[in-house]
Amino acid sequence: MIGIFDSGIGGLTVLRTLMEKLPGYNFIYFGDIARVPYGSKSHATIVQYTLQNVDFLIQKGAKMIVMACNTASSIATEDVVKRFDMPIFDVITPAVEQVIKMSKTFKIGVIGTRATVKSGIYERKIKELKPEANVYSVPCPLLVPLVEEGWLKKPETTMIIKKYLHPLKVRQIDTLILGCTHYPLLKKIIQKKIGKRVNLIDSSVTVAGKVKGFLEKHTDVDHLLTKNGMTRFFVSDVTPQYETTSNQILKRNVHFELVNI
Amino acid sequence: MIGIFDSGIGGLTVLRTLMEKLPGYNFIYFGDIARVPYGSKSHATIVQYTLQNVDFLIQKGAKMIVMACNTASSIATEDVVKRFDMPIFDVITPAVEQVIKMSKTFKIGVIGTRATVKSGIYERKIKELKPEANVYSVPCPLLVPLVEEGWLKKPETTMIIKKYLHPLKVRQIDTLILGCTHYPLLKKIIQKKIGKRVNLIDSSVTVAGKVKGFLEKHTDVDHLLTKNGMTRFFVSDVTPQYETTSNQILKRNVHFELVNI
Repeated sequence: MIGIFDSGIGGLTVLRTLMEKLPGYNFIYFGDIARVPYGSKSHATIVQYTLQNVDFLIQKGAKMIVMACNTASSIATEDVVKRFDMPIFDVITPAVEQVIKMSKTFKIGVIGTRATVKSGIYERKIKELKPEANVYSVPCPLLVPLVEEGWLKKPETTMIIKKYLHPLKVRQIDTLILGCTHYPLLKKIIQKKIGKRVNLIDSSVTVAGKVKGFLEKHTDVDHLLTKNGMTRFFVSDVTPQYETTSNQILKRNVHFELVNI
Repeated sequence: MIGIFDSGIGGLTVLRTLMEKLPGYNFIYFGDIARVPYGSKSHATIVQYTLQNVDFLIQKGAKMIVMACNTASSIATEDVVKRFDMPIFDVITPAVEQVIKMSKTFKIGVIGTRATVKSGIYERKIKELKPEANVYSVPCPLLVPLVEEGWLKKPETTMIIKKYLHPLKVRQIDTLILGCTHYPLLKKIIQKKIGKRVNLIDSSVTVAGKVKGFLEKHTDVDHLLTKNGMTRFFVSDVTPQYETTSNQILKRNVHFELVNI
């Protein structure tokens, strides 16, 4: 199975795209709802939680891992790759590769959690490939709670997004990385507020393309994966509003299994 | 020492009032920042976290406990009282006693987290004392993240508060319980939006009064408490913005000690 985890339900946007691109594959999803949000926690705590999550997915039979959380990807990818001997995908690298292809002016905006922005990972990775790029990063810590509350279309959400994006608008960026898997759920408002000429890079789409390409090339890994279209959902806590929002994201009824991690 | 805990930093409003009312007493505070917010978690998870927190405070020398978190108080007070043999104060009971004294029309509003409101505890306790009371409760799940972000005076915060309070305004309540220790930090906006004729009940003030009264009567417990004006602050995670907000709340420099709970 392909194992996927996120701090909460944002990673379901990644799962949704993976299910579209790889129909018939088996997936196992873990949402660490009891400990969400990750983005305001310290480096050490994020590493600890990430390693526990990957461990759990492997125990449940995962043969490759998609870290569908930008915060975990920013902070803990190196630790995960060091510890576990299997293909590991983070959501940062594919988004960076995509931005290098798409941007013309190389004035690039990044929005993410406080931890992701503080890590400086997008800027570092973009500049490795394109040293002359200008990367402007803005932390948007309130967007995760707004999404988790399902406030996807409220005027207050629009106002908060406008406020967060203002410094990027002033910089006249041509490409904006949605550096958090919750943000694709706010894509329309973000596009409207940053301006329609700005390209949005959605890490849930780019990582799914990367996983698909990898499996086409590495048939040995592909053979390890069972394919009878089953998906299991594990969470570290169950509350009714999470189930509602999850059903909305996946457009189907999701049955969550509770685990104590 | 007097042990106090909260899911995050909201409980510092309780500590601040206790320090004013009981100068010279020793306090030990635990903020469960790694696992904040509690208000969107399930019953079982809230009970588990609460028992762990109390255990920790007792290990560190607490001789009485103030549960400075409405969510924990709503859900887990009974479990805590059953498990631990020492004076335990929750923030619900003193607020209920106060509201019975203050309200004239007994049209009472309660705002709190989703878990607190869902527990129905304020309504149940008010009606035990005053069966004819009308209690209207509204969950305000975004206020905790807004406070933890320090967005105490932003127009978006005001708009969100106005939206949350609207159903209570329509009911013409005469008393409003701030059923979350984060909310006293938004008291001015709340007062403005609900109307100046509505009495606000601040659980951080009422519980401190209750603790003081108890110690005056129970000198045997009071003798157990050391009194050299020392306070220790423990947290389950450390991030810079928490330190900033905590310093603002307590108007002094707070040194946090990190613990893995």
